[in-house]
Amino acid sequence: MQSIKAYQDIIHDGLTSFQFPEKPKDLYEPISYLLSIGGKRIRPTLTLLAAEMFGAHSTQALSSALAVEVFHNFSLMHDDIMDKAPLRRGQDTVHIKWNANTAILSGDFMLIHSYTLLAKNPPELIPPLLEVFNKTAAEVCIGQQLDMDFERTLQVEIKDYIEMIRLKTAVLIGASLQLGAITANAEPEQAMLLYEFGVNLGIAFQLQDDFLDAYGDPQHFGKQLGGDILENKKTYLLLKALELATDEDRDEIVSWLQKIEYDPDQKINTIMRIFNKLEVQNNIKDEIQQYTQLAYQALERVDIDTGKKAPLLKLSEELLNRTK
Amino acid sequence: MQSIKAYQDIIHDGLTSFQFPEKPKDLYEPISYLLSIGGKRIRPTLTLLAAEMFGAHSTQALSSALAVEVFHNFSLMHDDIMDKAPLRRGQDTVHIKWNANTAILSGDFMLIHSYTLLAKNPPELIPPLLEVFNKTAAEVCIGQQLDMDFERTLQVEIKDYIEMIRLKTAVLIGASLQLGAITANAEPEQAMLLYEFGVNLGIAFQLQDDFLDAYGDPQHFGKQLGGDILENKKTYLLLKALELATDEDRDEIVSWLQKIEYDPDQKINTIMRIFNKLEVQNNIKDEIQQYTQLAYQALERVDIDTGKKAPLLKLSEELLNRTK
Repeated sequence: MQSIKAYQDIIHDGLTSFQFPEKPKDLYEPISYLLSIGGKRIRPTLTLLAAEMFGAHSTQALSSALAVEVFHNFSLMHDDIMDKAPLRRGQDTVHIKWNANTAILSGDFMLIHSYTLLAKNPPELIPPLLEVFNKTAAEVCIGQQLDMDFERTLQVEIKDYIEMIRLKTAVLIGASLQLGAITANAEPEQAMLLYEFGVNLGIAFQLQDDFLDAYGDPQHFGKQLGGDILENKKTYLLLKALELATDEDRDEIVSWLQKIEYDPDQKINTIMRIFNKLEVQNNIKDEIQQYTQLAYQALERVDIDTGKKAPLLKLSEELLNRTK
Repeated sequence: MQSIKAYQDIIHDGLTSFQFPEKPKDLYEPISYLLSIGGKRIRPTLTLLAAEMFGAHSTQALSSALAVEVFHNFSLMHDDIMDKAPLRRGQDTVHIKWNANTAILSGDFMLIHSYTLLAKNPPELIPPLLEVFNKTAAEVCIGQQLDMDFERTLQVEIKDYIEMIRLKTAVLIGASLQLGAITANAEPEQAMLLYEFGVNLGIAFQLQDDFLDAYGDPQHFGKQLGGDILENKKTYLLLKALELATDEDRDEIVSWLQKIEYDPDQKINTIMRIFNKLEVQNNIKDEIQQYTQLAYQALERVDIDTGKKAPLLKLSEELLNRTK
C-alpha cells in the first residue's frame, strides 16, 4: 500500500503521458486541458487499490484505472454543456473556453478513448471488463437524464432521488473497484462484493455532499454554503423537508423555489430555518450511516485477510469524514 | 446471397427490436426515432455480406452489423447538432424535435450502446473486433473535426480533403466489412484486404456524392442540385476549381463564397460555369475511377472464389452507379 498521493501521481503521470497528435488541435487540446486541471482521482485510485487487494501489482490495473478516469472526465465535459456550468475545478469549462461543438466532439473522443484504454488489457480480461464498463457507462447516462428530469418537477420521491444518485454517481465508484478486482483475476462474486461496497459508499458519499453544502464548516468547505439552495437543487435535504413540512412551510419553500429576484442570504436563511425546524440533518445523517453500513457489510464478506482491506477502508473513511 | 432488401429488413428488425425501458423517455425516444426513420443501411449490410463471404451465416454477424449502424447514427445525431442541420432524411433532426441537450445525451447513450452490441459477440472475437471499432470510432471524430476546421478556411489542399473524407466517411465503410470478416473468423490479412476495399470504395462513394450534387440528373437526384455550392462546402469540385482557376476566376469564386445576400440560381450558375470551363468534372471522374480501381484490386487479392465476391461487387456497383 502506497500513500494516496503516490496513487494520484501514478494516475496523473498516466493521464498526461497520452501522446495525442498535434492536429487537429481543437479536438485534443480540450482533452489535455480537462485532464490536467486535476480532481482527486478517487475512481482510478479505487481501481488500483482493488487490484492490489487481490494480489496484482497496480501497474496491471493502470489501463483500467485510466479508462475510468477518462470516462469520468468525458461525462463531466458533456454534463457541463447540459448544465451550462461556467466553471469546473475553479477553471473555465471546455464549452466556455472553446465552444459547445468542441466540448461535444472532444467529449465523444474521450468516451471512445476510454474504451481504447480498456482494450489495452490482456485479451482474456477484455470481455468481462467490457461488460462492466458498458453497463456502468449506460447507467451514468440514465442518471444524468433523471437528474435533468428532476430539475423540472417537485414530484420527486426520496427513493427516486437515491436511484438517480446511484446511477449518476455511485455505480461508477462501484465499477472502478470491480474493474480493478477483475484485472487481478478475482472471482466474479468477490469482484461483485467490491462493486456493492462501492455503490453504497458512493451513495453515502453523494449524500455527504448534500449535507456539507448546507451544514459544512464554512472555514473548510471549498464552496459557498447553501449553493444547492440557491440553485434550487432537489437534494435529499430539500426533498425530505418537502416530505415532512407542514402545508405552511411547504408553501414557503415552494414560493422561494419560484422566486426570480431575491436576496440570496434571505433565501438560504429561510430554507435553512425550515431544515433546522424539521431536523432533516438527522434524517440525512441516518441515511449516510445506513449506506455506509451496507458498504462495510459488503466489504466484510470479501474473502481476503482483513489487513488487505485496510487501505480501502482508510480511503473510504477519508472520503466520508471530509469536511469539504 | 439474399437481395439487398432482405438484408435491410434483417437490420431494420434488429434495430427496432431493442427493448429500451419506457423511462427516462427523453433518453430513449430520440434513439428509437432516429433509428426508425431509416437510411439505406449500407454499412451493416456490408458487415453481413462480408461475414457470408467467409462462410458465416449472416445472423452470426448481426450484433456487429447493428453496432456499426448504431455508431453511424450516433455520429449523425451529434454532427447534426454541430452543423445546425434542421433535417435528416427529410425529418426533423433530434436537436430540433427535442433540444441540443437531449441530442447530446441520447447520442452518448447510442455510442455506448454500439459497444454493448459489439460485446454480444463470442468472447474470443471481442478483442479483435474492439480494436477495429475503437480505431475507427476515433478516426470518425478526427474526420468530423477536420471537416469543421475546413469550413473556416480556403487553404485546403485536395490531399487534405481526401484525408478528411477518408476519416469521416470511408474508414467506417472499411471497418463494417472488416468486422464482418472477423466475425466469420477470416484471417487478419484477409479481413484487412476487405477493409482496404471498403476504404477506397468509401472515398469513391463520397466523391460521387460531390459529383452528383453538381452534375446529377435533376429528375433522379433526391435533393436540389447545387446544394453544396449554396452551402459553400469545400467539395472536391470547388477545391479543384480553386487550384486550376485563373486569378480572375478564383477571385470570382471567392467573392461568391463571401456574399451574404445573393440570388441562389445566379450563384449556382456562376460557379457551375467556372466548373464547366475548367472541366473539373473530368478530374473528379478520374479520381472516382482511381479509387474504384484501388478498391477492386484489394478485393481481387482476397483469397476466396470469385463467385463469393459477386454480392459485394453487385452492391458496390449499385452504390457507385447511383444517380441520387
